Amino acid sequence: MNASLDPKRTIAELKELRALTGDENGAQRVAFTSTWVKAREWYQKRLEGLPVEIHRDAAGNLWTTLRGASEKCLLIGGHIDSVPNGGWLDGCLNVMAGVEILRRINAQYGGKPPVTVRLVDWADEEGARFGKSLFGSSACSGNLDMHEARGLVDKQGIKLPDALKNVGIDFERVKDSGKELKNAAAYLELHIEQGPVLLDLNLPLGAVLGTFGVERHAITFHGQAAHSGSTPMNRRKDAFLAAAKMSPEIYKIAERSGNGVCTIGSCTTKPGIVTSVVEECRITLDQRHLDAAKLARMLHEAKSASEQFAKEGNVRVSWERLWQIAPRPFNDELISMCDESILETCGQSHCFPSGPLHDAAEVAAAGVPTVMMFVQSLHGISHNKIEDTKEEHLELCVTAFDKLAEKAMGWIRR
Amino acid sequence: MNASLDPKRTIAELKELRALTGDENGAQRVAFTSTWVKAREWYQKRLEGLPVEIHRDAAGNLWTTLRGASEKCLLIGGHIDSVPNGGWLDGCLNVMAGVEILRRINAQYGGKPPVTVRLVDWADEEGARFGKSLFGSSACSGNLDMHEARGLVDKQGIKLPDALKNVGIDFERVKDSGKELKNAAAYLELHIEQGPVLLDLNLPLGAVLGTFGVERHAITFHGQAAHSGSTPMNRRKDAFLAAAKMSPEIYKIAERSGNGVCTIGSCTTKPGIVTSVVEECRITLDQRHLDAAKLARMLHEAKSASEQFAKEGNVRVSWERLWQIAPRPFNDELISMCDESILETCGQSHCFPSGPLHDAAEVAAAGVPTVMMFVQSLHGISHNKIEDTKEEHLELCVTAFDKLAEKAMGWIRR
Repeated sequence: MNASLDPKRTIAELKELRALTGDENGAQRVAFTSTWVKAREWYQKRLEGLPVEIHRDAAGNLWTTLRGASEKCLLIGGHIDSVPNGGWLDGCLNVMAGVEILRRINAQYGGKPPVTVRLVDWADEEGARFGKSLFGSSACSGNLDMHEARGLVDKQGIKLPDALKNVGIDFERVKDSGKELKNAAAYLELHIEQGPVLLDLNLPLGAVLGTFGVERHAITFHGQAAHSGSTPMNRRKDAFLAAAKMSPEIYKIAERSGNGVCTIGSCTTKPGIVTSVVEECRITLDQRHLDAAKLARMLHEAKSASEQFAKEGNVRVSWERLWQIAPRPFNDELISMCDESILETCGQSHCFPSGPLHDAAEVAAAGVPTVMMFVQSLHGISHNKIEDTKEEHLELCVTAFDKLAEKAMGWIRR
Repeated sequence: MNASLDPKRTIAELKELRALTGDENGAQRVAFTSTWVKAREWYQKRLEGLPVEIHRDAAGNLWTTLRGASEKCLLIGGHIDSVPNGGWLDGCLNVMAGVEILRRINAQYGGKPPVTVRLVDWADEEGARFGKSLFGSSACSGNLDMHEARGLVDKQGIKLPDALKNVGIDFERVKDSGKELKNAAAYLELHIEQGPVLLDLNLPLGAVLGTFGVERHAITFHGQAAHSGSTPMNRRKDAFLAAAKMSPEIYKIAERSGNGVCTIGSCTTKPGIVTSVVEECRITLDQRHLDAAKLARMLHEAKSASEQFAKEGNVRVSWERLWQIAPRPFNDELISMCDESILETCGQSHCFPSGPLHDAAEVAAAGVPTVMMFVQSLHGISHNKIEDTKEEHLELCVTAFDKLAEKAMGWIRR
């Protein structure tokens, strides 16, 4: 059935896009900029010759529809926008693999597949300019916080609604995008892993179980400044000591949780001088798990530990929530199909959760059965010009993702 | 013999000085300012009527000499300068207690004590303006680093040599001050403790064993930034984890050392964002001990621990020395006399090292037998307007310090 699928063409097109919209520092397709507009124009040219309808929705997402025998839709998604100085694959691999699969389906079914197939290029997945990711997909899912988004400003002081107006989008109507999901029966997304799991396992591809839920907090320990020379050790109220004990502890908490992760990403100290015991120490804690109950348990354990360490050190602790999001488990049947497609393509597979968020999380939250496929990232690095994936793995991912699309069409039809 | 000693007068004079040179934010007698000059003028008026010779040496230290039967000198020292917004006792208590003792000795011996008694008001003990403490005493001891001092500038960009010129001091000649120590046979200094040891023991006074040696380093752990969501715990090179393990460790190192102290006063993290494993973590470590070998051992243990934690966490560690000074143990016989004087005055005593540095450390380094007496600090706090000591303790310290001066004169004579 893959007679006309040409994964090498996808790689060639990705290189062409890189040459067109990148520079010596990497990809520059930041959403709502002229380079992003140029990338989308180039993308639409790739679709010429296919019997598709293309339109932009109220949130700026670009939909390409190949009508099928059934109104029920298979959705394939990605995002052509990038961070500034980004990599050559993050987001656009998904879209360009989708183009190749549309070509194959169109050829195989003579322009009339059994179900409708739609390719969506989400607007501003990265949130690089306004600090708010998943803009287009969260508008579509209905989860976008309009009040918060209305107040977002970029570094030049330009408000998000004004930036949208410049590209012809009416901010107050962005949630009209939701109607695009009307007949959606399944959503598929391919992405580079952006982590080291597949690299470590020496596997090209993996099926994604869902996106992690996230609990993000600032934890501040309040002690007492005291002279480093004149204050005996047993008299100290050392805020850093209590905060420091949290670091090995979060590794234990993550281990107990199964496959959750915990990160202390920053630490600041006051007064922060060499001759004083630390009076106040603030750390940030980011906790992620695919299972909501286990995520809640990780948070509870971190809070208990912080209180114990505060008590031991005769200091006080306070917590402030910075952000949270619920886990988005993907659809079990689609996960199985994804796993099978990978096994058929390369003989080995691995199922694991996604740490980073993706548009797929928003689509899943909107109730559409969803799955993602990951392809190995070299160096485990993305959002950087050195982001890369072996070309043989890129070819495998297009092939496997196409198999998944075919299985999903059959599933929708049944 | 204490018939004419009047400790209450010392307290009254300290209050007078506070009213003259302090404001609602505390003491303002920063060295080489007009308020400092005013304080010294007031101080010299207090000496009127005594048969003393007063002169300023090449480093700006003010010497008051009561000639005795022997040329051998008992030195009593202090500093009338303060930090900005300082306390009412730090430095000037020592000087004013010295004035009262001079009065007593003069009265008792009819203007001709058995040995020469000299009171010195050291210049710029605090180093508040140029960030370099013990200026006058280190010029006198010969330890002042001329090259370093020549380059010091204050916040207004004024160089130390120019600031000295303004008050009539030729920077290039400051070490001529050293000749003042020619006949010095003992040096005594009284000071508020600036720590909580005596307060904790509920004792008014203590004898000081010496000033701590200090090893001050910056320790940087070098790991790898990685996404907080996509990087499994066992794949991380977490610079913060290694640094954090140092905090409980330094408490163990200090405990093993006997009575040393170790402080991590600051911690900075890069990139320092909530969604990234810490790539680089820099902490400062301040270690102090009265025993040079034990100080060296504490440093060695900290280095070994840092290397172990770096190895465990698959990160790298580097050390940078910020500062060091050798311990200055005081004279055993003078320590005994100090302890006896305290016992005779209040029935209980305690001998312990000084964490903070004092001019006494410089005098001891110059080879003059030295001891200090500490009086309890309330709150364990100094360099702040809330710095305070109970008046009954102030009276006791003047009395005990006077006994020490008498014993030291006898010792010098023998």
